[in-house]
Amino acid sequence: MLRRLYSTILGAPTGKLAKNIADLSTTELLIKAGYVSQPSAGLTHWLPLGLSTIRNIEEIIRKHHDRAGCQEVSLSVMSHQSLWDKTGRWQNDELFKVGDFCLAATAEEEMTQLVQRTADSYKKLPVIAYQIGRKYRNEKRPRGGLLRGREFVMKDAYSFDVDQSSALRSFEKMNQVYYDIFKELNVPFVKANADSGAIGGDLSYEWHFLSESGEDTLLECDACGVVGNVERVRPHVAGGCFADEAAVSYHLTRDNDLCLIYYPKGRTVNFKFLKDEDLVELRTDVSSEEAVRTYRQFGDDEFRNIVRIMDVGVGPGTLLPDLEVAYSRSRMTTFEGVPLTAAQAGDGCALCEAGKLQSFRGIEVGHTFYLGKRYSEPLDAGFVDSEGRKQHYEMGCYGIGVSRLVAAIAEVTRDADGLRWPASVAPIQVDIVVAGSYAGDLGAVEEFCAQLDGLRYRVDATEGHLGEKLARSKRLGTPVQVIIGKQFPKIEIELRGLRRDLGKLESEIRQQHGVDKLVVDVEKGPQTVHKLLSVM
Amino acid sequence: MLRRLYSTILGAPTGKLAKNIADLSTTELLIKAGYVSQPSAGLTHWLPLGLSTIRNIEEIIRKHHDRAGCQEVSLSVMSHQSLWDKTGRWQNDELFKVGDFCLAATAEEEMTQLVQRTADSYKKLPVIAYQIGRKYRNEKRPRGGLLRGREFVMKDAYSFDVDQSSALRSFEKMNQVYYDIFKELNVPFVKANADSGAIGGDLSYEWHFLSESGEDTLLECDACGVVGNVERVRPHVAGGCFADEAAVSYHLTRDNDLCLIYYPKGRTVNFKFLKDEDLVELRTDVSSEEAVRTYRQFGDDEFRNIVRIMDVGVGPGTLLPDLEVAYSRSRMTTFEGVPLTAAQAGDGCALCEAGKLQSFRGIEVGHTFYLGKRYSEPLDAGFVDSEGRKQHYEMGCYGIGVSRLVAAIAEVTRDADGLRWPASVAPIQVDIVVAGSYAGDLGAVEEFCAQLDGLRYRVDATEGHLGEKLARSKRLGTPVQVIIGKQFPKIEIELRGLRRDLGKLESEIRQQHGVDKLVVDVEKGPQTVHKLLSVM
Repeated sequence: MLRRLYSTILGAPTGKLAKNIADLSTTELLIKAGYVSQPSAGLTHWLPLGLSTIRNIEEIIRKHHDRAGCQEVSLSVMSHQSLWDKTGRWQNDELFKVGDFCLAATAEEEMTQLVQRTADSYKKLPVIAYQIGRKYRNEKRPRGGLLRGREFVMKDAYSFDVDQSSALRSFEKMNQVYYDIFKELNVPFVKANADSGAIGGDLSYEWHFLSESGEDTLLECDACGVVGNVERVRPHVAGGCFADEAAVSYHLTRDNDLCLIYYPKGRTVNFKFLKDEDLVELRTDVSSEEAVRTYRQFGDDEFRNIVRIMDVGVGPGTLLPDLEVAYSRSRMTTFEGVPLTAAQAGDGCALCEAGKLQSFRGIEVGHTFYLGKRYSEPLDAGFVDSEGRKQHYEMGCYGIGVSRLVAAIAEVTRDADGLRWPASVAPIQVDIVVAGSYAGDLGAVEEFCAQLDGLRYRVDATEGHLGEKLARSKRLGTPVQVIIGKQFPKIEIELRGLRRDLGKLESEIRQQHGVDKLVVDVEKGPQTVHKLLSVM
Repeated sequence: MLRRLYSTILGAPTGKLAKNIADLSTTELLIKAGYVSQPSAGLTHWLPLGLSTIRNIEEIIRKHHDRAGCQEVSLSVMSHQSLWDKTGRWQNDELFKVGDFCLAATAEEEMTQLVQRTADSYKKLPVIAYQIGRKYRNEKRPRGGLLRGREFVMKDAYSFDVDQSSALRSFEKMNQVYYDIFKELNVPFVKANADSGAIGGDLSYEWHFLSESGEDTLLECDACGVVGNVERVRPHVAGGCFADEAAVSYHLTRDNDLCLIYYPKGRTVNFKFLKDEDLVELRTDVSSEEAVRTYRQFGDDEFRNIVRIMDVGVGPGTLLPDLEVAYSRSRMTTFEGVPLTAAQAGDGCALCEAGKLQSFRGIEVGHTFYLGKRYSEPLDAGFVDSEGRKQHYEMGCYGIGVSRLVAAIAEVTRDADGLRWPASVAPIQVDIVVAGSYAGDLGAVEEFCAQLDGLRYRVDATEGHLGEKLARSKRLGTPVQVIIGKQFPKIEIELRGLRRDLGKLESEIRQQHGVDKLVVDVEKGPQTVHKLLSVM
């Protein structure tokens, strides 16, 4: 409970935040406002205001996991190479290594081994275990402050089931948990398909906050409403409807054959789609120009193939550009009708074939995966079924970037005046600011506060200019300010936080004092504050 | 809240713990009972029962720190070499290194830098900042399981003051916080002097649980009551009272002079005391025999001194053993009356000179240090005083081994039947066990439970033998068992936990049913359970 004055909270600013808050990045704003400090790139020290914020988020995450029957554990950060060798994940530049140990970036290996030791019979399944703690990733260029750090706080959950249908029920249960968590955080979010939508294949969703500054582009169908990450969405191409003109890019395969990719001019190729098709394996270390140059250097006696891959939008009537290299028809293979083009706003929806795709941007804050036996088989981890046979677990894994959420929520909710926390996560939800003009005693203020039980509030009865005290409270993002002044026993309530749907309350506020102010009797005050915070 | 059945708690044993619990080490017992798992030596995975236990301890620690005005922060585990170079602590084999970073073992450097950034004026001091989190130490031979791990959970606090008298007030405040914490944990403890008692010098206390299996030997004066670690206690030697016979040990100094230490035969020398005297610097890599052998090999023309150091208990009338080497009086220096002997039970107390020392063993669980400017000067960290001058902080640091506490509490409280938690930290405080003979409905049980609000309880209404369900609850260390059976609305209360002072309640219990059982009306049940737990 942060019931101290801002001026005595370690790191909280005593004066103004900065000259021009609008020019600060969100990470800079969180640093200026005393929420965090950065000792090195990608590392974070949590100060009291920031620690309270991340704890509030953790509590919401914990509550919904516990309600769904998930079990909380806390694994060692250090994990031995022997386990990671089995799953082929040790050779990874982004893992911090300390001798034979790594600092865990995720915990599939350790968690699977742990559950194997404790739930080795079908009678003890399903199990969903989760933890909230620090994870490590050796980002070569840590950027975006809290959004992508070398040390970060993550919630990672893992489900263990006896068979696929049970695993899919766990997967659905966890998606519901995620929905409930993001709903309670009260920041606009979407669940986006993160696989190619092949039914029965791998199932995976990304959870995004909507933000113009987000790193990811999302596409939503205006008819069926399905949202997908642009990296995974294929545009609908009506049969026989081909582009007028094609563009081509040159590549070398791993065998140094030349690969030509033809696609509608003006569009972009999504190489993940090409990989999914499993037709060729391209080298990623040569540009289109280098590929042409290298190919030309091969002698005539060196046998080289040319592989042509035509996007589904390229067909009869499409003008193809001339080849830039000599070739022989006998050495040429062509694949036609391959879906390679990335979708973009305005394309048709390949799922419902009815709607058009809209584009917007998001910040990824969570991910849910159905894993199947991808980890349990190499780790040979499983259970004894009802007939005494050993079987491998069907698994899922579920991540939320907890420290990332602090920055993402701040990013989405802040404005040019400062931070603006949703009530669910605000370190301080209510500032009770006593004006110099207040003639009563502090007993009446204490009486008022006693009815704010369960809320995170703070009383500022220091000397000082009322306007400055209010402004500081608002800049630091506190959702509600209560002013106790000369009008007492009438009190004034000001709102800084995001308003979702104040309903009748809002119309009252509007009628009385414009949207941001409300005057009520002190008896009604606590009830009004509770009601306001419940929708902020 | 662990309201699940034991049988569905991840890792909790469904059958018996082990054949002979008494033979298990406490770490083995915690593993068998499903509190923790050890993936590698010195590393710990916390399972739900263990995680709940350590969280309860953390909450007690947090509460008392917050009450005293300490501010909670949470620093990055990764800390850059540049800071540690300044304090000369980088060259340390026990620091895990990851490139230019170490995994922090303590946080004097980072915390000092952080406070420097946020409290750089005398107006913002004093500050006491603390954190609870994971620390790392590259123990070459991690032993004792949770007692000494490579990854462990620690509470570390740091105080920053403007001058020494203010720093000593912070030091005293923190000692009070420690007293309150250990009092609430309800395990017998002592505060032991951890320095040599020189007034005005470095101040430092160790906090120990009393345990026969403890690693440390403590000495307490039966008159003045002062407790000290044997490593730091000097025996009282009455003036003119010398030993009949002396023993001698041979050493080489850094300059390869020979050093002879004479002390009362049958006693041991505490080399820390010798170091404190600053007379000679001894090589630690040669034994007494090797020192003699090496000295004999020096030629006559090599100038070598002999330094004789006489313990304060060696004097006129003490029989000295013959020298084993040739010597020349002109090359011999003698220091007399140097206090070198380690104290032992039965010795006089050097502090009050009245009492005798008693010996017992302890497990160190906390440490409080007055640091002065040992860190602030090399880090050049400080504040601007009221006259505008830059000054260095006066500091203190204060540690509690949190994961160590889980093992230490278990060690002190367990018996041959299993674990036996104090109510303060028990993951489950009350097991409500419904017997097969109970004829009522579960509504009445729920009504009973509703009055246990604030307690960590669990209802076991499964099929199964009542005796086995009770035994399991007791083995896992749950302090109170409530049996709802055929006598309902009378209920039976059994006690597993440690009883401190049940007072009148205990005599009632004794009169009625012996010490471990109590039958009460269900209406009185919740009140009785609350009262029992408050002293367990």
